[in-house]
Amino acid sequence: MIYADHAATTPMSETAVSAMVSMMRETWGNASSLYGLGQKAKEALEEARADVAEAIGAQKNEILFTSGGSEADNQALRSAAALGRKDGKTHIISSAFEHHAVLHTLDALRGEGFEITLLPVHEDGIVRPEEVARAIRDDTCLVSIMYANNEIGTIQPIPEIGAVCRQKKVLFHTDAVQAVGHIPVNVVSDQVDLLSASAHKFHGPKGVGFLYAKKGVRLTSLIEGGAQERGRRAGTENVPGIAAMAAALKEATENLPARAAALSAMRDRLIDGLRRIPHCALNGDAKRRLPGNVNFCFEGIEGESLLLLLDDLGIQASSGSACTSGSLDPSHVLLAIGRVHDVAHGSLRLSIGEELTAAQADEIIRAVTDTVRHLRSFSPVWRDLCSGKSKFILP
Amino acid sequence: MIYADHAATTPMSETAVSAMVSMMRETWGNASSLYGLGQKAKEALEEARADVAEAIGAQKNEILFTSGGSEADNQALRSAAALGRKDGKTHIISSAFEHHAVLHTLDALRGEGFEITLLPVHEDGIVRPEEVARAIRDDTCLVSIMYANNEIGTIQPIPEIGAVCRQKKVLFHTDAVQAVGHIPVNVVSDQVDLLSASAHKFHGPKGVGFLYAKKGVRLTSLIEGGAQERGRRAGTENVPGIAAMAAALKEATENLPARAAALSAMRDRLIDGLRRIPHCALNGDAKRRLPGNVNFCFEGIEGESLLLLLDDLGIQASSGSACTSGSLDPSHVLLAIGRVHDVAHGSLRLSIGEELTAAQADEIIRAVTDTVRHLRSFSPVWRDLCSGKSKFILP
Repeated sequence: MIYADHAATTPMSETAVSAMVSMMRETWGNASSLYGLGQKAKEALEEARADVAEAIGAQKNEILFTSGGSEADNQALRSAAALGRKDGKTHIISSAFEHHAVLHTLDALRGEGFEITLLPVHEDGIVRPEEVARAIRDDTCLVSIMYANNEIGTIQPIPEIGAVCRQKKVLFHTDAVQAVGHIPVNVVSDQVDLLSASAHKFHGPKGVGFLYAKKGVRLTSLIEGGAQERGRRAGTENVPGIAAMAAALKEATENLPARAAALSAMRDRLIDGLRRIPHCALNGDAKRRLPGNVNFCFEGIEGESLLLLLDDLGIQASSGSACTSGSLDPSHVLLAIGRVHDVAHGSLRLSIGEELTAAQADEIIRAVTDTVRHLRSFSPVWRDLCSGKSKFILP
Repeated sequence: MIYADHAATTPMSETAVSAMVSMMRETWGNASSLYGLGQKAKEALEEARADVAEAIGAQKNEILFTSGGSEADNQALRSAAALGRKDGKTHIISSAFEHHAVLHTLDALRGEGFEITLLPVHEDGIVRPEEVARAIRDDTCLVSIMYANNEIGTIQPIPEIGAVCRQKKVLFHTDAVQAVGHIPVNVVSDQVDLLSASAHKFHGPKGVGFLYAKKGVRLTSLIEGGAQERGRRAGTENVPGIAAMAAALKEATENLPARAAALSAMRDRLIDGLRRIPHCALNGDAKRRLPGNVNFCFEGIEGESLLLLLDDLGIQASSGSACTSGSLDPSHVLLAIGRVHDVAHGSLRLSIGEELTAAQADEIIRAVTDTVRHLRSFSPVWRDLCSGKSKFILP
């Protein structure tokens, strides 16, 4: 079996599993309890907070633990919106290809009187800092641009956008769910005010994530109740999950540049191999993308059929975001980079991990090439294209 | 070490740990992915949903998984409030001694234009169904009364309150975080519309809970994003945690009446022993309380000092809710049952588990008796009481 869907979720590292198990068995006290067992849990919690902070260049008290990336995104946007409203600023800038955790929260905020500008992401899948600068108005309270896209993997010019926002004194949030643990992220040099991340995307457990909020940026609670997380997130702290996340993140960020370079080489091997398939296109910039991300459109086929046949061949991949699989709509990300409806439907996302060997990469190339040919062999759309009845869109 | 703070959190059962570990290692796919690994996770998720539903007499599709009890409480109240507002009904009834996850959400709703009536809970710590009935108005959209109190353990007349609400066509939510897995709970005979629970209170993992919502009661999302949980709770499903919760709940509810009776006998042994301490009072009704809950006030001492000394003796207990420990305010629960400020400060909650032996119960009685005597021996408040300078409140 070749698992090529790391953007959907990753297997937990053994380090993370061990941390979790030892916490579940030995450090299971309530971190708010005053006796020994509780204080031991509290210490583990604060140690995890320090580790997570260090991994992204933050201060310990700037890290809030959440149940995952979606919650972190929701809380970041709601917090910035609340701060904006207090100052009479109700304009928010984001991009057309954000994750739905951002886009749907923005929809909700629109319903509450906020005005939302969604910037274009161009054919290369990159937001332009100068377009962010031009979109900022006197009443702009927040810019939210993802660190790296979850479908096409394109990495955004976060430090440049951060500089624009800092200069214009507008809060800057980045959904870094796909970036943290995969490429170097530093909240100071990136000039980020709010950043969301999710443990299960970097070999940590599911149901845990974190929100970085720069000192002085007041967070609004999504969940009211007890005084946990300094009153910003009620509920007994999931110390085993949090400690496992910290262990996974520490491991994921060790020697990261070298490891990312090695993974990028494997990604490029896949891209080079798949590009030979006729009438296909790589989605997103070829270089400014996550080390493990490959995303293609193949004309004349349905992405879902391709996935099912690849699954039969032991290759687990996706057509886009797992969060929307089962939906019949084409990917909003692919539409945002200008793919037309029919082409967007024929997409394949391969998101690989470090365990992938060159032989496995070649096996993927062969399997995809054969399966695309097979699917086209009985596709009426492909027949029309070949007979000239309709025109090819992809070269 | 004697752990007597099960109301704060419980150790995970080995069944739950095993379920979690096997899921983390083998069933770690994204439950929304279409390939084999994802579908295996989806099956585990739906099996867990069926098991959880069965444990409380619900239907599978009436169970929504959350990150814990606080989130479930928040979502239940926010959902009912949204439904109420649509119908022009903005009055909510609750009680004075609810968990802060309910009370603070009600505070927020008050700020958004809802009117909140908090019913008294009387000296026995029990809400009267007839008072609920009297408080219901034409514009009441929700009654929220906890199943069993988290500090004093009193069990509320939920079926009777449910009947009142059903008859008056008002939604009924119960925070059953302390009840589920400890006493029999059945949403049908209880006539409940919304019910919150938390896994770590019944030997499941932290960071997982569920919300029961009767078919037809439309939930509002607290967390927007992907289409998970039928669009009612975005975020990759924490399948390992959810499966472990289901395993723990299944185990906790097996043969429950007999086990609860055995635990109650141990509780009564503790109550009988501690009652012999002069100038103390049991908080809450002696019989209509959770099988594992003992809560006393001792005049002339500080609860926190008592806890720290008991910790030194190897007994881990609390003065009230872990969610508010560290706060200097006296327990709102003890104030609600009429304890005055000074007396409320001298509280001790023992919440025992089934592993407690009679010898350990006797050890607790001795330790508490000795420690209370010791603390009183140098308490100026106690000196004033004994010299007649101030008057005893407790008999």
